Amino acid sequence: MAPSSSRPLLLRLRHHHHPSSPLHQILLFVVSGLLASLPISADGLPPELGRDGMYRQILRDETVLRLRELGKISDGEGYLERTFLSPASIRATAVIIGWMEDAGLTTWVDQMGNIHGRFEPANSTSKEALLIGSHMDTVIDAGMYDGSLGIICAISALKVLKVTGKLERLTRPVEVIAFSDEEGVRFQTTFLGSAAVAGTLPESILQVSDKSGTTVQDVLKMNSFEATTTAISQARYDLESVGSYVEVHIEQGPVLEALHYPLGVVKGIAGQTRLKVIVDGSQGHAGTVPMKLRRDPMVAAAELVVTLEHLCKEPNKFLTYDEECGCFTEESLAGLVCTVGELLTWPSASNVIPGQVNFTVDIRAMDDQVRETIVTSFSRLVLQRCDDRLVDCRVEHKHSAAATHCDAELTSQLKRAARSTVSAMPGRRAAAGETPVLMSGAGHDAMAMARLTKIGMLFVRCRGGISHSPEESVMDDDVWAAGLALLNFIDDGSAVSEPEVERQRNAVAES
Amino acid sequence: MAPSSSRPLLLRLRHHHHPSSPLHQILLFVVSGLLASLPISADGLPPELGRDGMYRQILRDETVLRLRELGKISDGEGYLERTFLSPASIRATAVIIGWMEDAGLTTWVDQMGNIHGRFEPANSTSKEALLIGSHMDTVIDAGMYDGSLGIICAISALKVLKVTGKLERLTRPVEVIAFSDEEGVRFQTTFLGSAAVAGTLPESILQVSDKSGTTVQDVLKMNSFEATTTAISQARYDLESVGSYVEVHIEQGPVLEALHYPLGVVKGIAGQTRLKVIVDGSQGHAGTVPMKLRRDPMVAAAELVVTLEHLCKEPNKFLTYDEECGCFTEESLAGLVCTVGELLTWPSASNVIPGQVNFTVDIRAMDDQVRETIVTSFSRLVLQRCDDRLVDCRVEHKHSAAATHCDAELTSQLKRAARSTVSAMPGRRAAAGETPVLMSGAGHDAMAMARLTKIGMLFVRCRGGISHSPEESVMDDDVWAAGLALLNFIDDGSAVSEPEVERQRNAVAES
Repeated sequence: MAPSSSRPLLLRLRHHHHPSSPLHQILLFVVSGLLASLPISADGLPPELGRDGMYRQILRDETVLRLRELGKISDGEGYLERTFLSPASIRATAVIIGWMEDAGLTTWVDQMGNIHGRFEPANSTSKEALLIGSHMDTVIDAGMYDGSLGIICAISALKVLKVTGKLERLTRPVEVIAFSDEEGVRFQTTFLGSAAVAGTLPESILQVSDKSGTTVQDVLKMNSFEATTTAISQARYDLESVGSYVEVHIEQGPVLEALHYPLGVVKGIAGQTRLKVIVDGSQGHAGTVPMKLRRDPMVAAAELVVTLEHLCKEPNKFLTYDEECGCFTEESLAGLVCTVGELLTWPSASNVIPGQVNFTVDIRAMDDQVRETIVTSFSRLVLQRCDDRLVDCRVEHKHSAAATHCDAELTSQLKRAARSTVSAMPGRRAAAGETPVLMSGAGHDAMAMARLTKIGMLFVRCRGGISHSPEESVMDDDVWAAGLALLNFIDDGSAVSEPEVERQRNAVAES
Repeated sequence: MAPSSSRPLLLRLRHHHHPSSPLHQILLFVVSGLLASLPISADGLPPELGRDGMYRQILRDETVLRLRELGKISDGEGYLERTFLSPASIRATAVIIGWMEDAGLTTWVDQMGNIHGRFEPANSTSKEALLIGSHMDTVIDAGMYDGSLGIICAISALKVLKVTGKLERLTRPVEVIAFSDEEGVRFQTTFLGSAAVAGTLPESILQVSDKSGTTVQDVLKMNSFEATTTAISQARYDLESVGSYVEVHIEQGPVLEALHYPLGVVKGIAGQTRLKVIVDGSQGHAGTVPMKLRRDPMVAAAELVVTLEHLCKEPNKFLTYDEECGCFTEESLAGLVCTVGELLTWPSASNVIPGQVNFTVDIRAMDDQVRETIVTSFSRLVLQRCDDRLVDCRVEHKHSAAATHCDAELTSQLKRAARSTVSAMPGRRAAAGETPVLMSGAGHDAMAMARLTKIGMLFVRCRGGISHSPEESVMDDDVWAAGLALLNFIDDGSAVSEPEVERQRNAVAES
């Protein structure tokens, strides 16, 4: 797949080969300094870059600096928020393009705001590109690893290949994609970016509007995109042009930490349903309407929030045998989670009984049947409870995705790459077991890309399983391990084999 | 009490004697037309203005037009919102000053943004002014009668006195006040306006901030007020300068409608407490944190909202005998209402377990002991439930006001004025019973003014008891009745006596 036609934004951004942030400039200075002054090792590279095939400077130190830099590009003051094509996202686009070009990639921005950085080897034996991606948007009050880690790790791995001269020798095209929207915070619809590349965006997407009434079409136009369905369809990749999609992402859960293992591979991604519940009652004065005469949507909504929690914690108490579809076993319920993340009251004044309350519902499960049964049961409970309270309720289905399974072969390759990396990392001998295989409770761009090609995912350990929070934290050495595993995976044939690693480590120990 | 020193805003506004809205201009044209063309009746006035002492044109038609005009001056598009010193409030100030001057009053704006319109009769026998007021601010998505009715009715009544030449003959000063803040929407603290006049504002008020971080001091300064405690204290009235305070207000409840009576007098106003409950939990990813490990402030808050409703609906189920203080009788619980009008989630995204949720609580009761017991019990339940859920909760007391009792003599005078008015109204013979005496569940500026002087209140029937809603509705004839009753009350000595009304009605019937 050739880069799509250039656009004004792209033309503007292409000139930003060297992002001008102070951090970046210091970094360039440090890197050039290192390259100029350090002794050259046996593989023809300065030891800080190449020693033991560990590439610590690029895969760890520079990657961590870039994560911090990107984590500061925010629409919020004092917290991280970067939503679809927001001003901060446009600033971040310029920075990411600079990093991609620094890694020797040809860059462009597609008609949905996704950033592409591609390398087409001269003697490529396959037209089927390896795509590596993650998302550049964030939730509100986000951490700096969710999404960004996958983008920056991939750029760093390709930069190592460039620096070591191996990029030219790859046998297939390789491309990093920074997707413009995965979280769906602004338009309440996930995967605007990756679904455009996979070609699964509905035509109606242009008319979806955010809280202020701005539509996807409006925001695309504001940023000089064409904003037509034809233009968006240009972002779509042909099946034949793509070999596979791989994504590095923080785990966002507590499993790897508990196993004392920095990396894991993903077997599958939980299915999810997003609902919006709208409760209409009778607005009135807080002092004059007797309790018994109220049709208060706030209390009704609160009751539904509590009901949803009960339903997800103890589904068997709510469901009759017929509904259980034989699937409500301890195992099938694993990973069932339900969340109300947003609740809005109107008119929202302390001395007014609200006229309307609406809230979001997020339901996820590994088992699609379990999830669908919970959605149906909750929708029925909403109507029952609302009838009891004489308020009017509607349940809108905003998003639904089946559970996704990762490709067995890709997963197996990622597992080997992770295994060899972890056993090669300094001071990591305690963690030298099998690479853990996990299920993902969080949705990822890989879910959308699975509609286009086979997918594989690599998870990186994070502290306390915390994500979607400024408390999100990944150890610098784990960032390094992720980059190295990805490098090993891409560099397939020329990857450092385990006996080789063992030999190198012994050599270091002896010296 | 002499008008306080002029201010830039005031000077600017004083030139707006004739508000320039199209409606107002049409009205002026109509009024001049009537005055010029209509035959003159026995009392020296055109019959449309003076016939039968009913003053329909001013007290009904013009008052209703002005209510509609003021109801359109809004900070919101498509709904009515006018908060303390907002741009719409400043525009409304100019319009109200125009109406006051049209009624022959001397106007000024005090250091808290209250608008005053005063008439000082030349041969006044008393220095103790009769103050008549209500508030010009609104809730969000408000109706057009709450507050505005009391201001415009009072101006209209004084206009009739001016037109009939009776203003000069009053025996005491009379003053209309349009208070700048009663609802407390912007700063979550009620009675900024009337408490300044009563001299009960705390010094700390200048530092209170709205949601955007703007303080009361900031907003005063932005509007060219001095914004110092000394300046604000100039708004305070001396006890000796005030004889009484009277307020006309829509009932905001269903009692008068049920009794088929347009007017009622108020015996007392319920006490109220406003709390803010802040629930801190553990922010996280909606897909990855198992239900059992969550510390979710959303579900905790929802549970508390439901608990509050139970507590207020059936307090005896929650309280032990000791706490009941012997006061939880059917009668003492009458009027007990609890409301959560506003609930905010942070960071408010559908796929994030919130880190913090906070909500407002409004508790009102006629019996102060009942209210205090409910506040204490709810605060205790908050801490218990939060402990159970391992979330951290704080209960902040934002506002508290004891129940207020109206002055018996003023109430009796208002009752007589209402009685004679209602029996005089055309087609109102069915409603010729005693004037109903009510308790008010809603707070009013009269509560704050009760700290300064004796108070009396006149309630006006509204449709379905609905208020704090665009559905708020008062019949035009009831607006007329309210203005006429107020006129009769002010015009004391020269008020139309009941036998006189009877004579006039008979004369009309015979003609």
